[in-house]
Amino acid sequence: MGNKQILDDKYFMLQALKEAYKAKNAMEIPIGAIIVKDYKIISRGFNKCITLSDPTAHAEIQAIKKAAKKLKNYRLNDCFMYVTIEPCAMCAGALVNARFKKVIFGAFNNKAGACKSVFRIISNKKLNHQVKIAGGNEKYLSIQCASIIKNFFRRKI
Amino acid sequence: MGNKQILDDKYFMLQALKEAYKAKNAMEIPIGAIIVKDYKIISRGFNKCITLSDPTAHAEIQAIKKAAKKLKNYRLNDCFMYVTIEPCAMCAGALVNARFKKVIFGAFNNKAGACKSVFRIISNKKLNHQVKIAGGNEKYLSIQCASIIKNFFRRKI
Repeated sequence: MGNKQILDDKYFMLQALKEAYKAKNAMEIPIGAIIVKDYKIISRGFNKCITLSDPTAHAEIQAIKKAAKKLKNYRLNDCFMYVTIEPCAMCAGALVNARFKKVIFGAFNNKAGACKSVFRIISNKKLNHQVKIAGGNEKYLSIQCASIIKNFFRRKI
Repeated sequence: MGNKQILDDKYFMLQALKEAYKAKNAMEIPIGAIIVKDYKIISRGFNKCITLSDPTAHAEIQAIKKAAKKLKNYRLNDCFMYVTIEPCAMCAGALVNARFKKVIFGAFNNKAGACKSVFRIISNKKLNHQVKIAGGNEKYLSIQCASIIKNFFRRKI
């Protein structure tokens, strides 16, 4: 992996973080996601569960729905997702169902993460499609991605 | 479990099957779901992935979004879902996130089921909420729920 790839990953994760700040401003748990195809951002999403009264309205699902509508295809082949936190089971399942190429997450989610932490849904060979994974360290802004959530809950207590 | 419970379960599963037929008529993989609260059906959904260009538009997700909007709450406490096929990882995760009380499915999904078959997401003690499970046998119309899908794919070949 050359320098360009690292720079691209950081740039795209910063864009996902920008979405997380939108969630924070809306008083939602601050998680953001973007979808990239051919090095272009094709959709963005942030957590809107409370705003929309919708338990499925995680950042990842918001971005997936928009991207599929845009591409007029329920399969998102060759797409990459950058998301600030390791996806939960619902979002990991959605990434597999949509046939994503790769998911890159910022920080681990030890309580509900379904890439590596609690379940291994993404890239599991028992399913008919495997999504590649990267994330969970400083190369992917893990500290910034975790901090925005920790600060959000600290202020709520 | 008395006779009344069995009759109720069959009645509600028949309603989920009715939704599956709507999917079949729309040329979608025929899966249907309903959500019940206080013995009343509060929402219905059928698979619309192709129609809506949306990989997240499984029957369960459609029904969950409608129910949450109706109750003006992103938590669906004390709700029951009846769904013709064992939910996949995405839908199982959504049921946990939404705090469902119980999911009752018709037939097992050996390729992607995330209640018992491939993953055990529903009612997993590693998560912060457990959803009860029933299903997968004739009491829950497993044969009818599986047949409609088998016939659908047979005609497509």
